[in-house]
Amino acid sequence: MFKFTISKKLKNARVARFATPHGVIDTPAFIPVATKATIKTLDSNDVRNIGFNSILSNTYHLMLQPGADLVKKMGGLHNFMNWQGPIFTDSGGYQVFSLGKGLAYGVGKVCKKNNSAEASTNKKSLVKITDNGVEFRSHLDGKKIFLRPEDSIRIQEKLGADIIFAFDECTSPTDSRAYLEKSLERTHKWAERCLKAHKRKDQALFGIIQGGDYKKLREAGARFISALPFNGFGIGGSFGKKEMLNVLEWTIPFLPENKPRHMLGIGVIEDIFEAVGRGVDTFDCVEPTRLGRHGTLFTKSGRIRILSAKYRADKKPIEADCKCELCINYSRSYLHHLFKANEILGMRLATIHNLTFMHNLMKNIRQSIKSGKFNYFKSQFLRKFRQF
Amino acid sequence: MFKFTISKKLKNARVARFATPHGVIDTPAFIPVATKATIKTLDSNDVRNIGFNSILSNTYHLMLQPGADLVKKMGGLHNFMNWQGPIFTDSGGYQVFSLGKGLAYGVGKVCKKNNSAEASTNKKSLVKITDNGVEFRSHLDGKKIFLRPEDSIRIQEKLGADIIFAFDECTSPTDSRAYLEKSLERTHKWAERCLKAHKRKDQALFGIIQGGDYKKLREAGARFISALPFNGFGIGGSFGKKEMLNVLEWTIPFLPENKPRHMLGIGVIEDIFEAVGRGVDTFDCVEPTRLGRHGTLFTKSGRIRILSAKYRADKKPIEADCKCELCINYSRSYLHHLFKANEILGMRLATIHNLTFMHNLMKNIRQSIKSGKFNYFKSQFLRKFRQF
Repeated sequence: MFKFTISKKLKNARVARFATPHGVIDTPAFIPVATKATIKTLDSNDVRNIGFNSILSNTYHLMLQPGADLVKKMGGLHNFMNWQGPIFTDSGGYQVFSLGKGLAYGVGKVCKKNNSAEASTNKKSLVKITDNGVEFRSHLDGKKIFLRPEDSIRIQEKLGADIIFAFDECTSPTDSRAYLEKSLERTHKWAERCLKAHKRKDQALFGIIQGGDYKKLREAGARFISALPFNGFGIGGSFGKKEMLNVLEWTIPFLPENKPRHMLGIGVIEDIFEAVGRGVDTFDCVEPTRLGRHGTLFTKSGRIRILSAKYRADKKPIEADCKCELCINYSRSYLHHLFKANEILGMRLATIHNLTFMHNLMKNIRQSIKSGKFNYFKSQFLRKFRQF
Repeated sequence: MFKFTISKKLKNARVARFATPHGVIDTPAFIPVATKATIKTLDSNDVRNIGFNSILSNTYHLMLQPGADLVKKMGGLHNFMNWQGPIFTDSGGYQVFSLGKGLAYGVGKVCKKNNSAEASTNKKSLVKITDNGVEFRSHLDGKKIFLRPEDSIRIQEKLGADIIFAFDECTSPTDSRAYLEKSLERTHKWAERCLKAHKRKDQALFGIIQGGDYKKLREAGARFISALPFNGFGIGGSFGKKEMLNVLEWTIPFLPENKPRHMLGIGVIEDIFEAVGRGVDTFDCVEPTRLGRHGTLFTKSGRIRILSAKYRADKKPIEADCKCELCINYSRSYLHHLFKANEILGMRLATIHNLTFMHNLMKNIRQSIKSGKFNYFKSQFLRKFRQF
């Protein structure tokens, strides 16, 4: 039912086809995030038209609204949101971090490690972690929710994604080594409990490797998780560029060649190149869509902020050779106006553009590996694509 | 350049073709409102795909952002928003009301006459009216703007719509008869000034008939305006259902048969039937799109509020035989979830559905007039379509 076939290797980078019950994912692939069963501002046809066949949704968000039982009753996530391609769901483990220490210490994923992370914010953690599971206070209504590994699996089975993840504790850069050791042990016990709880054979279960920024812990995590009969692996808890490179160096060598590797929450373009080069197959991240909604658009010459006054009377499209709905039909001037006027259409068109950019980028990355020119493509691309 | 050809009359109702430089409008027609050069949540292709070929934009909003000079520089509204069909722009006259007494007395158009309209709100009018023109305070930044009839025309010429309107004072239901008389005289002087100021021959200029809820004033308004060499006529300042019927009875008999008649800001479905039956050709209104964004959807059995708990697990589409993007692809349950989760996609899909409904309705209305069955269609339709 699941088959992972590598067609080309170039050092650690690889091109593969990951067959799932709802279609084949050509990897390396970027998986756009449909947090609450929609990629914000887009419907399923929009996402298909851009070229994507796979998406990732968030278990935590969907269990709160509309609820896993409702989604199951509606025929599962595929039918509910009319998406007939592969779907990933995360396990809720990331929310253990983001609603817990992420909130309390002001640490974020996409916005990198907060330098003042040691200083606590005035926000309270919504999370209590025990060996048995995690108690959340819903960010919507404050209701208490207890999530054990078994619950996460049961919920993900109801949601019905093709690829689901084991419930883990995503640790924080603010955690001590002693805490990380304890947490890693807990994540490993949870991994075993998830495997035991998981019944649906039409779902691939991925184990998640944690271990913070410590070589020894990451290696221990990779060894332990990769020895379990998971269908694939997620690499979690990586914050910051340098940290991510370390995590990959310490983790990938221990993972079996013949199973897919997903990098959780990574999607900054520079990071994708690094991770692909080190053997990661799939990525999910809200960055391209979130940046789009805030008026930052990807071009081959870098990211542009459309609200800048210099685009006010700019008749050119965002990118001359881009074939997306935005670039074919509208000028930078029009998009500038839409953002200035707080028109939702601006967010939508920017989202479509950024996702088109990501889709083309991944296609070019796959092509560059196939033709043995990944490093050349990477350096050419990144030379033009400047960080803002 | 403009040609209005009636192909069928059924008592006062009429089917016609209104040829403009950017295409033919089949009337009676509903013209969706693209306030700030976008029908909220939709791009021009979306609107075309629904079936519309004509839209109306607001001069007042566009003169503030992005500004008429910018739009002109970008090739006019047609190029700026990539809409190659007919465009109407209103004159700013409605904002004389909505930002003036509308704000100060809490009176709205779509929400009908406010019963406590005599009681002033704690909001201040942003408008000062003199015979020379209107001083606005921008609702965006408080900046003073002085708009004379000549300015409105000049701005509308820069925007470049196919059909533009004379600058008028849209009076308020709270105005006294004495005030209305004075105002009507002013609106008539302004109409003459607009005709004099208007130079572009590729734009049809419509005169606007005001006169409040007074028979004598409406008749005087209709006589005066219809005697001027306008290309068509707008009927403005009508608030409330009964008042609208009166206004039409008092106005239409004085209008020439061979020129198009537009009803400003009217778009409640029941009102459209009444106005078509009395000889109105085109309508613009934010109601279908605004209701959609707030989760109210049109069906042949009436309006439904998708946030109602009864749709939570409803697998059916909004309307079984509707061919819109929403009804073909998604259930009521999914739309309920999108609104519950505050996902923008919900607003977008509901907008697409409501506009599809309006487009089909107007097609059926035209067909019913052609086949001599307008009254039958109207009574059948309205029997099922209940007010909520």
